[in-house]
Amino acid sequence: MKKENIVERKTDLVADWQALIRTFIMPDNDAAKTRLVKYMEQILFGLHDFLKKHVGITEETSLKELSQRFSNSLINENPEKRLADVITDLIEDIAPHAVNVASPYFVGHMTSAIPFFMVHLKTIVAALNQNVVKLETSKVLSVLERQVLAKIHRLIYRESDEFYDKHIQNHKTTLGCFVEDGTLANISALWVARNSMLGPKAGFEGIEKEGLINAYKVYGIERAVVLVSRLGHFSLRKSGGLLGIGNQNIIGIDVDENNRIDLKALKKTIREIKHSSRKTMIFAIIGIAGTTETGAIDPLRRLAEISAENKIHFHVDAVWGGPTLLSEKYRHLLDGISLADSVTIDGHKQFYMPMSCGMVYFKDPTIMDAVIYHANYVNRPGSVDLGIKSLAGSREANSLILDSSIKIMGSKGYALLLEHGIETARNFAEEIKNRPNFQLITAPELNILTYRICPLHLQQELSKAKSEQRNVINARLNTINRQIQILQREAGKSFVSRTTLKIRNKSEENEENIVVLRCVIMNPMTNMEILNEILDEQEEIYQKHFGGLK
Amino acid sequence: MKKENIVERKTDLVADWQALIRTFIMPDNDAAKTRLVKYMEQILFGLHDFLKKHVGITEETSLKELSQRFSNSLINENPEKRLADVITDLIEDIAPHAVNVASPYFVGHMTSAIPFFMVHLKTIVAALNQNVVKLETSKVLSVLERQVLAKIHRLIYRESDEFYDKHIQNHKTTLGCFVEDGTLANISALWVARNSMLGPKAGFEGIEKEGLINAYKVYGIERAVVLVSRLGHFSLRKSGGLLGIGNQNIIGIDVDENNRIDLKALKKTIREIKHSSRKTMIFAIIGIAGTTETGAIDPLRRLAEISAENKIHFHVDAVWGGPTLLSEKYRHLLDGISLADSVTIDGHKQFYMPMSCGMVYFKDPTIMDAVIYHANYVNRPGSVDLGIKSLAGSREANSLILDSSIKIMGSKGYALLLEHGIETARNFAEEIKNRPNFQLITAPELNILTYRICPLHLQQELSKAKSEQRNVINARLNTINRQIQILQREAGKSFVSRTTLKIRNKSEENEENIVVLRCVIMNPMTNMEILNEILDEQEEIYQKHFGGLK
Repeated sequence: MKKENIVERKTDLVADWQALIRTFIMPDNDAAKTRLVKYMEQILFGLHDFLKKHVGITEETSLKELSQRFSNSLINENPEKRLADVITDLIEDIAPHAVNVASPYFVGHMTSAIPFFMVHLKTIVAALNQNVVKLETSKVLSVLERQVLAKIHRLIYRESDEFYDKHIQNHKTTLGCFVEDGTLANISALWVARNSMLGPKAGFEGIEKEGLINAYKVYGIERAVVLVSRLGHFSLRKSGGLLGIGNQNIIGIDVDENNRIDLKALKKTIREIKHSSRKTMIFAIIGIAGTTETGAIDPLRRLAEISAENKIHFHVDAVWGGPTLLSEKYRHLLDGISLADSVTIDGHKQFYMPMSCGMVYFKDPTIMDAVIYHANYVNRPGSVDLGIKSLAGSREANSLILDSSIKIMGSKGYALLLEHGIETARNFAEEIKNRPNFQLITAPELNILTYRICPLHLQQELSKAKSEQRNVINARLNTINRQIQILQREAGKSFVSRTTLKIRNKSEENEENIVVLRCVIMNPMTNMEILNEILDEQEEIYQKHFGGLK
Repeated sequence: MKKENIVERKTDLVADWQALIRTFIMPDNDAAKTRLVKYMEQILFGLHDFLKKHVGITEETSLKELSQRFSNSLINENPEKRLADVITDLIEDIAPHAVNVASPYFVGHMTSAIPFFMVHLKTIVAALNQNVVKLETSKVLSVLERQVLAKIHRLIYRESDEFYDKHIQNHKTTLGCFVEDGTLANISALWVARNSMLGPKAGFEGIEKEGLINAYKVYGIERAVVLVSRLGHFSLRKSGGLLGIGNQNIIGIDVDENNRIDLKALKKTIREIKHSSRKTMIFAIIGIAGTTETGAIDPLRRLAEISAENKIHFHVDAVWGGPTLLSEKYRHLLDGISLADSVTIDGHKQFYMPMSCGMVYFKDPTIMDAVIYHANYVNRPGSVDLGIKSLAGSREANSLILDSSIKIMGSKGYALLLEHGIETARNFAEEIKNRPNFQLITAPELNILTYRICPLHLQQELSKAKSEQRNVINARLNTINRQIQILQREAGKSFVSRTTLKIRNKSEENEENIVVLRCVIMNPMTNMEILNEILDEQEEIYQKHFGGLK
């Protein structure tokens, strides 16, 4: 058989059984070990210095050039390089072209610096290599995971001691589940919601078994929809597509001037759906605790009430904002979250865990029965295996990282991080308002804000201009802000992201697409001095490339 | 606001800003560092000794006792413990109650020992903390991921140099995708298959957007089904449930005496569906390259032909067996895999990566267009972001681990591991056949086999017995084998798994549920001496507890 997919490039390395077993167990020799020890020491005990020194330092290498360097689709027959050389390449040659998300100047996405000990914890998890979906490959870690789930469940739902005593280690019930990320968490929540709203009844074995077509017939509906603010994360549309309800049936509701779901618009939509000729079931209403683009928090308590009145599953996407519950000072912002039927939170966002860890929690510890699966060789009925009710069939023990981190930081340690982000974002908003070249677009409710370059004279002009004229000015500003974001990113020192918001123009009752710069302040090393530098650089780029727009 | 979910237990530790920043950056003091260095040195440079010494050494602790120890649902306000103490607890107190999946005596599941350097690679990935779904948080790692995807795609599909030159770094096309695990990989494959079989056409925007109900209407069907051997992994049923087609529509086809899909039965089912009064679309046929329970490989080439004749998406679940393609000696077993429309492979199984890494590959580099999603702040149309076509919205850079590992091992290094597994399993099967107390149930095609305790005299009795009498004997044997598996697991030295197979009784044309012991041989340190010890122990348990069944 021809081996078109495997080649032999020249190397003095040979794969034989003895070499293989050695490679499996230990470094080639003392020199190799010394090199590995050096790197591992730097990574484990000087993480932030290491990242500063090695990562993202050669931004000038273009994507095109990198693409050319990584265009070899052939696998070598014998080892291409020794382990120590591969690691050296990783550190010296690949890492420099990665992105230093740990830099305090990297304030554009929801990925940031993590405490150095997170890397230690991840190392231990990898070494243990447990698969937590089954007890036979995890034992204590399945038990520990249930405890962590209960801790976070309690943070959200604040049920009684009796409730947690009953459920914490009860393998017949489930308080939540670890998943890959926020998207999978939202998918899981809506999967459970769909199945419980269209569950078994006389002559029908439920949507999971019989499928959507039978479910709609039995329940007498032609359509199932989900209602969420139009600022909902795109994972919700993806969930709609995946679950077979169709992503156009994830209906985006208008937001108010604070980017929160407009309750009047929501109620109007509910009324319209109820009186529609097309029989429609609203199977979930979603509240967002920290929208991706602006960090806004929907009025969760009111949404819970509306959902309850209409007997609709109430889901809260707290992927971003959930950990705010750890701050006594700001947890009131999420008031009403304890009324949610399901809540999603990411570990790798504001729990400061390494990539990636999502979680989903449920008020009713039996609701996940709607997604039970068994197999003969594992996850047998009645078993303690966590995999009985979970999307994934193999999972690493991320729960161990979260459990340890909570012990190391305490709720107050997390609270300090969260409060620093919120308060720094507020100060930053003030600074933006004070700078005549900038316009604050969305003030921070949590630690996310958006703004744009828009010199004061243009702000004034815009406030007086008619629709058509406004469009011309905004189009130009959009181009400029888009360019500034790209130029700053490519300069390699700072990173803010950009997005396009639909902003309602009060006077004219229409909406405008506004390109904005977006900052997410979560790195504890990010301070006002750094944020001022970032603004300075943006102003410089603006002056240099657009000559101070007249 | 009452803080029912957060308590303050006595500790001398206080979370304040200064302590927090310190904890973020480095160990508390030199003594703490020394302790951490000691553990990390053991883990990184003496992994297998470390696991042997620390993990799974106290099997006698019952699940009940562990459950009682992990029943605290409260989060402490201040740090509960110092980092070094938390790590010490992890190593000294938690790890002993985990499962040493790296032991050569652990041959029951698809989780095993990994090369020590995998832990180094995972550590580096965690330290870089890139999110590979977007270029802005990964840069070179997005580019590198495309290269690894091309390497594995080429291993499967063996397309031309021109093909790979064209697609390897072409952001308009996609050769595959990394996902959390094999379940998510199978879900992704069937998601894409569903969407491309029920895609947009005149007056219809496709199932992803409009949902299943409209799709069935437009395509004139009442049901969509998937055909797969009844030994298909339970993730396939889960996919059916999740995708809205209903898990009862994942139809299990009978297997032949070698546990491969029975082609006659398959064709019969296809004919019946075509002539059924209920209009049904078969949207995927699935071949398995390494069934979970027996390791059997379906006749992939024939399945490809049948799929092509009927214009059905052909998916190969090679989650287990895929890496066999790296062995020149055994790759012929997967003959026909290159004809598959989609293929799934797990990295944490026979690529020996740490938990968890799944992958899905597609023959047609444009087929993933059926699952494109965009957002304003990232994954914008035309961008290079890998997240445009992926289930997850945040993903760690597992591709870096696989890429490095392929370089370190070479295809031949992997081949040696795979061949060791296959050949040891064959020798093990011979040994089982030679022992009068054991009966081989399924011979290994790859490196998985099943057998049971069944003394020779009972084997002879069974071969002569009538149905009713057979049932009595088998029921008793099932109880015994179930017990032996549990007792051996609890003794803590060795682990084989168990499952229940439906075995066709040739003479009587009916099927019997047989509890079998299941071995998966993938650890290179597992040899015949160890496997003999495992059999000896099972015989001893049998003699002791069942007194040599007469």
